[in-house]
Amino acid sequence: MGEQIQVFITGGTFDKEYNFVSGQLYFKDTHIPGILERGRCTLDIDVRTLMMVDSLEMTPEDREIIGHHCQKTQSRHILITHGTDTMTVTAEYLAKENLTEKTIVLTGAMIPYAFGNSSDGFFNLGSALAFVQILEPGVYIVMNGRYFPWNKVQKNTKTGYFEELS
Amino acid sequence: MGEQIQVFITGGTFDKEYNFVSGQLYFKDTHIPGILERGRCTLDIDVRTLMMVDSLEMTPEDREIIGHHCQKTQSRHILITHGTDTMTVTAEYLAKENLTEKTIVLTGAMIPYAFGNSSDGFFNLGSALAFVQILEPGVYIVMNGRYFPWNKVQKNTKTGYFEELS
Amino acid sequence: MGEQIQVFITGGTFDKEYNFVSGQLYFKDTHIPGILERGRCTLDIDVRTLMMVDSLEMTPEDREIIGHHCQKTQSRHILITHGTDTMTVTAEYLAKENLTEKTIVLTGAMIPYAFGNSSDGFFNLGSALAFVQILEPGVYIVMNGRYFPWNKVQKNTKTGYFEELS
Amino acid sequence: MGEQIQVFITGGTFDKEYNFVSGQLYFKDTHIPGILERGRCTLDIDVRTLMMVDSLEMTPEDREIIGHHCQKTQSRHILITHGTDTMTVTAEYLAKENLTEKTIVLTGAMIPYAFGNSSDGFFNLGSALAFVQILEPGVYIVMNGRYFPWNKVQKNTKTGYFEELS
Repeated sequence: MGEQIQVFITGGTFDKEYNFVSGQLYFKDTHIPGILERGRCTLDIDVRTLMMVDSLEMTPEDREIIGHHCQKTQSRHILITHGTDTMTVTAEYLAKENLTEKTIVLTGAMIPYAFGNSSDGFFNLGSALAFVQILEPGVYIVMNGRYFPWNKVQKNTKTGYFEELS
Repeated sequence: MGEQIQVFITGGTFDKEYNFVSGQLYFKDTHIPGILERGRCTLDIDVRTLMMVDSLEMTPEDREIIGHHCQKTQSRHILITHGTDTMTVTAEYLAKENLTEKTIVLTGAMIPYAFGNSSDGFFNLGSALAFVQILEPGVYIVMNGRYFPWNKVQKNTKTGYFEELS
Repeated sequence: MGEQIQVFITGGTFDKEYNFVSGQLYFKDTHIPGILERGRCTLDIDVRTLMMVDSLEMTPEDREIIGHHCQKTQSRHILITHGTDTMTVTAEYLAKENLTEKTIVLTGAMIPYAFGNSSDGFFNLGSALAFVQILEPGVYIVMNGRYFPWNKVQKNTKTGYFEELS
Repeated sequence: MGEQIQVFITGGTFDKEYNFVSGQLYFKDTHIPGILERGRCTLDIDVRTLMMVDSLEMTPEDREIIGHHCQKTQSRHILITHGTDTMTVTAEYLAKENLTEKTIVLTGAMIPYAFGNSSDGFFNLGSALAFVQILEPGVYIVMNGRYFPWNKVQKNTKTGYFEELS
């Protein structure tokens, strides 16, 4: 506690908006700073948007960028917002980056924060910020109120829940 | 992870409602089960309402009831929703109850969950559930994205933020 | 005032939901009854769902069904929720149905009601219910706080606003 | 249609906020301009805040101010947001002000707009704006989806609904 937490934004459902002209979802700006204010969060947090992409369209180059920033940041507590569809892929990539002294937590949302009362985003951010402060160094996924080591989890694509791999 | 979390409801701003006839705030039922569903939480949680009171009106008998239930529950992870005004009083009471093997987290909200987009409750519940899973046994307050050992914290009554005692 | 208002639901953005598994919008049940309760509406209203379709996919047969129900209802005040993309097409169809004693108002939303605080749906329903009570018999579109006779209006597909035809 | 609508803000539950430090309701700024934007309203509207008071505390001098502004405005369509408790008192006062060419609509809310999804305010504003455009000159109260001539209505203080006087 007291150390700065680095938040990296990569997009995902968390930050999607509804375009009322086209009827499509798209990205504008991240909601994270506003969410932290609403959560009355007093942690020392630096928010940086790395990209705004649907995780199904995330490229190897995008993951290199994320890895590069995780290497470079001086913070030992890193929270990454990320689309849920390939969250485990990025988690695996980062786990192999040899970031041995850092606690890296990936989180996201199944319903955009902009969709108000139905979104799980605000809850997920609250639990992810908590876990990133006190979990041992390593790479984790935080969804559904739980944390999962990167190699012990999969997304159930039918239900949208994250499940422990046995 | 995997162990059941015991949630005890005591009321507080978190669960207050607006009575549109009288213009006053009051208690009806707790929102916690609905909040857990919205958060898509898959933790094993047992929710039990002990009381629904404004923490300024909480009596020594009320604290005995809370302590008694903390003793009795078989869970080692206990989350208590509580009004913020006397949260530290109850935390101190529980710390002296000799519940040495249990992690007890008190959390609350500055703005009622029922007031929609302005409430901090959903965020606080997310972080409190995370902290209660992995903090060492002890009594803690979780607010503003942070955890505080029970004897290292006070509420700033002018700003509504919880601050570390030096 | 005092006469029953007939509300016919046809779908449209107003009633769309977000499917968090597929990331697509879809229809489940209409929100209108819940909206009327939230609006504390004490009008005598009968709500009937005729279909749940995106108005871009509305067929001539669908419009026949709507016209048929407008003929059949004994109410002289008819409110139809409808997608905005072809609202004027259905309005024109109904205008030629020779429903000379009835006030028919079509309304909709640019943002789904389920998307919470950003939706215009609740406002539009309030103004549409007001207009349908007191406008002269005829077919109207109510959007953006205004009413437009069916043959004096077009949707600006770039901005999403309805504009008066000169 | 096309003529400017004059909106006068006087406060009332509609515009109340929750003070999270004191736990009391209070007034800050009116939400009306933001509400009109959310409603995607394209009417020509001038919004002017006359006062921000709980209508139980509205004085004869306050009503004189409201009456004076209703006289002075060049608009023939006047919408007044007002607390519900003494809405009929102000309506009666204005009815006796000899504003014979003006349509004056008073509306309000039972639940503050700031309380999100539970508020009736957005709906009431939608219907009040519709009624003020097309009702005959006179003084009206618009609540619960209905309009009431000023001398034909009372608030049921037990239920919060407005009822027609027989």
